[in-house]
Amino acid sequence: MTTTAPRKARTSSRKKKRCFYFGARKTDGKASQKILLGGKGANLADMTSIGLPVPPGFTITTETCADFSRTGKLPAGLMDEVKRNVTLLEKELGKKFGSSSDPLLFSVRSGAAVSMPGMMDTVLNLGLTDKAVRGLADATSNPRFAWDAYRRLINMFGNVVMGVSHEKFERAFDIIKKKYRVELDTDVPAEGLEKLCTAYKAVYRKAVGSVFPQDPMKQLQHSIEAVFSSWEKDTAISYRRINEIKGLAGTAVNVQSMVYGNMGEDSGTGVAFTRNPSTGKNEFYGEFLINAQGEDVVAGIRTPEPIAGMGKWNAKVWKQLQAVRSKLEKHYHEMQDIEFTIERGRLFMLQTRTGKRTGAAAVKIAVDMVKERLINRDVALARIPANDLTQMLLPSFDPAMKKKAKFLCKGLPASPGASSGCPAFSAEEAVERAAAGESVILVRKETSPEDVDGMHSAAGILTSTGGMTSHAAVVARGWGKCCVAGAGELHIDARKGVAVVNGKRLTRKDVISIDGATGEVMHGEVKRNVPKKISGDLATVLKWADARARMKVRTNADAPVDAKRARDFGAVGIGLCRTEHMFFQEDRIGAMRQMILAEDLPAREKALKKLLPFQRRDFEGIFKAMKGCPVTIRLLDPPLHEFLPHEAKAQREVARQLNLKPAQIARRVEQLHEMNPMLGHRGCRLAVTYPEILRMQVRAIVEAMISCKKKRIDARPEIMIPLIGTCEELQILRALTEETIQEVRKAKKYTAKLNIPIGTMIEIPRAAITADEVADVADFFSFGTNDLTQMAFGYSRDDAGVFLPEYVEQGILERDPFESIDQDGVGQLVDIAVRKGRTSRPGIKLGVCGEHGGDPLSIEFFNTVGGCGLDYVSCSPFRVPIARLVAAQASLAAKG
Amino acid sequence: MTTTAPRKARTSSRKKKRCFYFGARKTDGKASQKILLGGKGANLADMTSIGLPVPPGFTITTETCADFSRTGKLPAGLMDEVKRNVTLLEKELGKKFGSSSDPLLFSVRSGAAVSMPGMMDTVLNLGLTDKAVRGLADATSNPRFAWDAYRRLINMFGNVVMGVSHEKFERAFDIIKKKYRVELDTDVPAEGLEKLCTAYKAVYRKAVGSVFPQDPMKQLQHSIEAVFSSWEKDTAISYRRINEIKGLAGTAVNVQSMVYGNMGEDSGTGVAFTRNPSTGKNEFYGEFLINAQGEDVVAGIRTPEPIAGMGKWNAKVWKQLQAVRSKLEKHYHEMQDIEFTIERGRLFMLQTRTGKRTGAAAVKIAVDMVKERLINRDVALARIPANDLTQMLLPSFDPAMKKKAKFLCKGLPASPGASSGCPAFSAEEAVERAAAGESVILVRKETSPEDVDGMHSAAGILTSTGGMTSHAAVVARGWGKCCVAGAGELHIDARKGVAVVNGKRLTRKDVISIDGATGEVMHGEVKRNVPKKISGDLATVLKWADARARMKVRTNADAPVDAKRARDFGAVGIGLCRTEHMFFQEDRIGAMRQMILAEDLPAREKALKKLLPFQRRDFEGIFKAMKGCPVTIRLLDPPLHEFLPHEAKAQREVARQLNLKPAQIARRVEQLHEMNPMLGHRGCRLAVTYPEILRMQVRAIVEAMISCKKKRIDARPEIMIPLIGTCEELQILRALTEETIQEVRKAKKYTAKLNIPIGTMIEIPRAAITADEVADVADFFSFGTNDLTQMAFGYSRDDAGVFLPEYVEQGILERDPFESIDQDGVGQLVDIAVRKGRTSRPGIKLGVCGEHGGDPLSIEFFNTVGGCGLDYVSCSPFRVPIARLVAAQASLAAKG
Repeated sequence: MTTTAPRKARTSSRKKKRCFYFGARKTDGKASQKILLGGKGANLADMTSIGLPVPPGFTITTETCADFSRTGKLPAGLMDEVKRNVTLLEKELGKKFGSSSDPLLFSVRSGAAVSMPGMMDTVLNLGLTDKAVRGLADATSNPRFAWDAYRRLINMFGNVVMGVSHEKFERAFDIIKKKYRVELDTDVPAEGLEKLCTAYKAVYRKAVGSVFPQDPMKQLQHSIEAVFSSWEKDTAISYRRINEIKGLAGTAVNVQSMVYGNMGEDSGTGVAFTRNPSTGKNEFYGEFLINAQGEDVVAGIRTPEPIAGMGKWNAKVWKQLQAVRSKLEKHYHEMQDIEFTIERGRLFMLQTRTGKRTGAAAVKIAVDMVKERLINRDVALARIPANDLTQMLLPSFDPAMKKKAKFLCKGLPASPGASSGCPAFSAEEAVERAAAGESVILVRKETSPEDVDGMHSAAGILTSTGGMTSHAAVVARGWGKCCVAGAGELHIDARKGVAVVNGKRLTRKDVISIDGATGEVMHGEVKRNVPKKISGDLATVLKWADARARMKVRTNADAPVDAKRARDFGAVGIGLCRTEHMFFQEDRIGAMRQMILAEDLPAREKALKKLLPFQRRDFEGIFKAMKGCPVTIRLLDPPLHEFLPHEAKAQREVARQLNLKPAQIARRVEQLHEMNPMLGHRGCRLAVTYPEILRMQVRAIVEAMISCKKKRIDARPEIMIPLIGTCEELQILRALTEETIQEVRKAKKYTAKLNIPIGTMIEIPRAAITADEVADVADFFSFGTNDLTQMAFGYSRDDAGVFLPEYVEQGILERDPFESIDQDGVGQLVDIAVRKGRTSRPGIKLGVCGEHGGDPLSIEFFNTVGGCGLDYVSCSPFRVPIARLVAAQASLAAKG
Repeated sequence: MTTTAPRKARTSSRKKKRCFYFGARKTDGKASQKILLGGKGANLADMTSIGLPVPPGFTITTETCADFSRTGKLPAGLMDEVKRNVTLLEKELGKKFGSSSDPLLFSVRSGAAVSMPGMMDTVLNLGLTDKAVRGLADATSNPRFAWDAYRRLINMFGNVVMGVSHEKFERAFDIIKKKYRVELDTDVPAEGLEKLCTAYKAVYRKAVGSVFPQDPMKQLQHSIEAVFSSWEKDTAISYRRINEIKGLAGTAVNVQSMVYGNMGEDSGTGVAFTRNPSTGKNEFYGEFLINAQGEDVVAGIRTPEPIAGMGKWNAKVWKQLQAVRSKLEKHYHEMQDIEFTIERGRLFMLQTRTGKRTGAAAVKIAVDMVKERLINRDVALARIPANDLTQMLLPSFDPAMKKKAKFLCKGLPASPGASSGCPAFSAEEAVERAAAGESVILVRKETSPEDVDGMHSAAGILTSTGGMTSHAAVVARGWGKCCVAGAGELHIDARKGVAVVNGKRLTRKDVISIDGATGEVMHGEVKRNVPKKISGDLATVLKWADARARMKVRTNADAPVDAKRARDFGAVGIGLCRTEHMFFQEDRIGAMRQMILAEDLPAREKALKKLLPFQRRDFEGIFKAMKGCPVTIRLLDPPLHEFLPHEAKAQREVARQLNLKPAQIARRVEQLHEMNPMLGHRGCRLAVTYPEILRMQVRAIVEAMISCKKKRIDARPEIMIPLIGTCEELQILRALTEETIQEVRKAKKYTAKLNIPIGTMIEIPRAAITADEVADVADFFSFGTNDLTQMAFGYSRDDAGVFLPEYVEQGILERDPFESIDQDGVGQLVDIAVRKGRTSRPGIKLGVCGEHGGDPLSIEFFNTVGGCGLDYVSCSPFRVPIARLVAAQASLAAKG
């Protein structure tokens, strides 16, 4: 202890380096320092290192942000370090910060380790003062440009740093525009802009209570503080919550020398992706605006030119930019999302980062890059966000029905998918109506970071302005949410709750359909189709995945058609075949009800006899669809009252059908009523008290199996007994099952061996805790993590909606435990059960059939739980491809 | 492996000794061999060893019974060993088995390691044949006695061994009695009994299909087989189940030379306790019958003489018996239950065993024996069956109300207690009606082993014949069930369902009240009183217990009156004070409903303000009653809909009271409706979504505490937050609680420190699993094992009644897990939580407040769970003395 203390003191007294320079003279940072410098900062340093034309600057570390968040002020010494770096920049660029002749100007931008588009605030043109603006005018010989830059600074600084309402500046601008009788900002002459600066400074003084700072270093300091403060803004917090961004210290601040895309017709600005982020095609993809500042492109205020047209405007720059594209991909081995500016014909790179893309693009890019030998298969697999595959498996509109649908207009195909719903005209409205169960399309002129909650709630997003890289498009693609952007024919009056498109008035009650793959907007609901086959690049990727994955992927399916589809999607078996759905069908529910209403065993057996052939036929169909693959059949699980009608009218109808008195049915319903059906007479408890039900089901399974075998169909049923809480239950029911199997064999004179594993679900906490005993009599465990979650937490899924959202909101739960398994609690129960189960029966087959079986985070957990993980996961057919990919990713991650 | 196999073979080839002789010549068995020889066999050997006059005989081991149960036949070689022992007896007694002159006769009786009165079958007079009976007549010069013995043998052997209905023999007897025109058996002359033997043999031949065996060794063999078979009889199995007798191999068989209490007026038989089994008084207590066989006393067919009267009949024997009594108590250091027979003035001891006794007797005997230096305090404590204390704490009739009650008749005070109910005239009827929720008194002429289920179900037992040691009396005392026996004025017609007593006709609809302490039977229900104070011997025992117990005992109490009573019963604190009951009272439910129906926070807070003074007053009352002791207050737990009426009529009434529309109430009820309220919006989840409720309750607690402190009352509240599932919940709510405590302190200007521990219930499996994290923010844990059991098993207590009894019946569960904690499953969760809790917060206070806190088996478990056990148990006031005793017993047992 005595030796440690001084060392500690020494460490903390050593000064942290807070500013990292990048420029021609030196570059302090590295690409690997994303945590410290933020994504943007690290990449600026990296781009500088590889010789790309980056305006020089420096990055203030995220640690500094953390210190600021903790103490509420900039750390001592920071501004001295900032000043030293400013001096270095002045030397490199030959300009002076705040000088009255050709002043050095800065942009100040945020940049966290994870990209958060549009969430953090930015100040441009920093360093302009009453004095410096004239220097800029002289140096550029463009007073209009200089005054425009100054008024932008006052506006932005006032708004972002000092919290002055943007509208106050707008009103001042309107007065000037009226004065000069012009409509567009760009038509105001230089002297008007000079007057505007005076007016803006007055607005500033009135709102802030002090004059606009004429000390450029003060401007810089306040801006740095503002960026750091914006880390804790509600919208930023909300974005991090929705995107589950955690564990970051804060944002970095990038102070970079200004370059201008709005210095005339030889200037411009643009954003681009090195490949098509929507399809993944290997083509340069982006947009640019001539004579504009960078923010204009992203904000979607003016509609930009496609980047392919740049060659016509400036062939040299276009060639240079294509070289940059190629250099970046070779350097990063990844598709890049870049921002650039051309100042008087000179190209500057402002940013590069890994580009967001659709699921389809992610797959295509991964496969292409493997072909191009940029990456290997393991990297390709690890890089595809599995959840994004949903997009490729998502419904699309039925082409025939779409032809018949009333076409309204066409926008940009910003994020693929197909959805229908009623317009919601604000984010709040979308949240509320979606929460009430309505399917809504968020219809907005454009979206902004404040809208993320509403965008998340909506079934789809439709905007009237903005391009493929607008806020709406980028965010929607990130989520795989259907989005049509820039549908210019749409005129929205959000306050009135009305949109007009080509003469058609749309209110909150009109259903519209949007196709994110084509950009089409239609009136009314359009039938959607569901993709059936996996082919092309996705098939390639999944083949690679299967070769890497340790865990198998099965599916939850109750009918031959679902089984077939899941098999097409790559399922290698059925992990959960629920038998109760079979009883609800029109032709069987009668017999089921007779069974439940029977007064004694013979009457019950008579009704069960009627159900037997139906069950047998169902099983035969499923065995055929899954021939050669295991089919885990769960015996009857829900409480019997679920099969009886609860309304008097329906009871009368059933009474008529079954030739009973309505009172008899009402009495039985009353008798079967339960206070807590989730914890009631269901699952194996039914089989203990009504063994004849189990016997009928086992009989149907074995008869179907024998019938298949006789037709040379390789049927592989596994019998799963649900809701086991004690090993004694399973002992008794296993014996009954085995006895019935032998009875059927004898009756059918089937002499060959029938291999039917008998196992149980682990869904009762007690079964998990005593899994060593249960494993003694179980050939397999299948974790029913839905019910296990309900009981471990004491949450009824039907009722928890009242408080669960608030629990996630308040951070009591990291996420909804029904969506992603609660690893700390429920996960421990699974872990205990896996270890105990394997100890008592080495080699016992272990799987999961709860909905968590299709959730990537949960699948990763299942890959390692209990030391060496489960043998398989089972999920709904549409999640099968995702699960296959995650299983591979989990295996790769486990290998390290 | 190669060396083990031969050793094994050698062991199993060594012959087991199966017969253990006891007599003057040698005694093979020892008192310590109860498991092998049964209680009776070991005691017969032991009594013989200490020189008591025991008729010689031998005992066949319980292992032999196990072999018989397994194989269905007597083991090879057994009968040879039996024959060798018979030969030894013939030598010792100078008589020959089956001889035609003075034959040796045997009784054959069962005797398991644990006493099961009346459950196993017995055959007497074994060895009589057509030839031997004449030898007996000659030897005794009493032909009547000889023929009577023979007819008894044929009847008993036919009935017990061969399963011939008793009535068939009875009918034959009736014919003989008619023939001799007598009414009583005893009036039939010797020649009539000889004819009766002929008739009985004919009955036997007709029913069995072969003649009554004339080979005495065959009689013996069949009898041994019959005793062994009776181990598996339904009544025996049922008795073992009810009394939770487990792990025994089988019963032993005691073959003993016959002695006769019915050889004339100088003979007799009796049963006695060495102390009064009802009060514990140190007095010789029992009954005897002159000229009778032993079974006559126990069966209650003739009403016997009190034992104190024996001196008048035969002073020598009386003195001898008193010496035996003293010798037995000195030898066993325990109260004994003995059977004896006097044959022609000579005393024989047939049996001794530890005597069953009431709870009061157990306490008094234990205290007396410590005073008499027969045992020490630890032995005394260990010996009192804790559950039997309930008897001493059970209600008794209010003396004033009893005086007013309509007296019907008086029987014997067979087992103390007081109960009221409607007559049930058969065991089956009692079971059925009790299951339907009715309180019934089982009214029978006499009870038999077949009736045990019905006796168990009834609130009390009333018989018209039989004494204090009759079957009904012995069994009822064992259970602590109220019983009045031998109420001779009661005339029962079970078939008609009517009893007539002193002219009053009682049907199934009449309520009667029986006082087991006085023997009184009354018409109608009589108000009962509840014992308030603990005094005398019980107080002594519990003082000893407290000195030995490691765990403290608290109580569950919600009102000052209950708190007061529990304190009188020795509770050292309140472990669970539920606050919801307080809201149901007439004067508060209105405000509570207003709170629930409030549309917004201000309205809710207004209603809560009304509740605050009520809560504060409640807490003050409880703090006063428990001054100086900790009071653990659980914050609101049940879902809000429990406070609203569900019926339309009641809703209209509430609407009127609160000046609302009925539809508003119906809508809120609908809104609050839950599918599974057990897993719904309750417990701490209410506090998370409605923090204002928590704030009001904490405010009330702290204000009450401060108010008490100002009156110099040492109030010690502990705040318990229910239903915690994650540590984050507790973090948030703890912060809110602490904040509120500080607010109140400030508002009340209370400057001294307020020490209010804040903890949680562990009742959610996830909380148990993550107890290390929860303990970080909890000052204490209180295990809510009711809910923990519900969730760990997935059983709703409200609904499990449909299958739980069947689960216990089928052996799936050893016992109802809500009565006694499931140590294997739920117990493991408690164990995990204790270990994790203590690891993360050493010294954390741990208790249990589920109903298991009053169950002896569970308390023993809690004493050692998690390595070093809980700090306290909390139970209902009436269980407090029991818990104190069990806590001491558990400490003694843990010491070893």
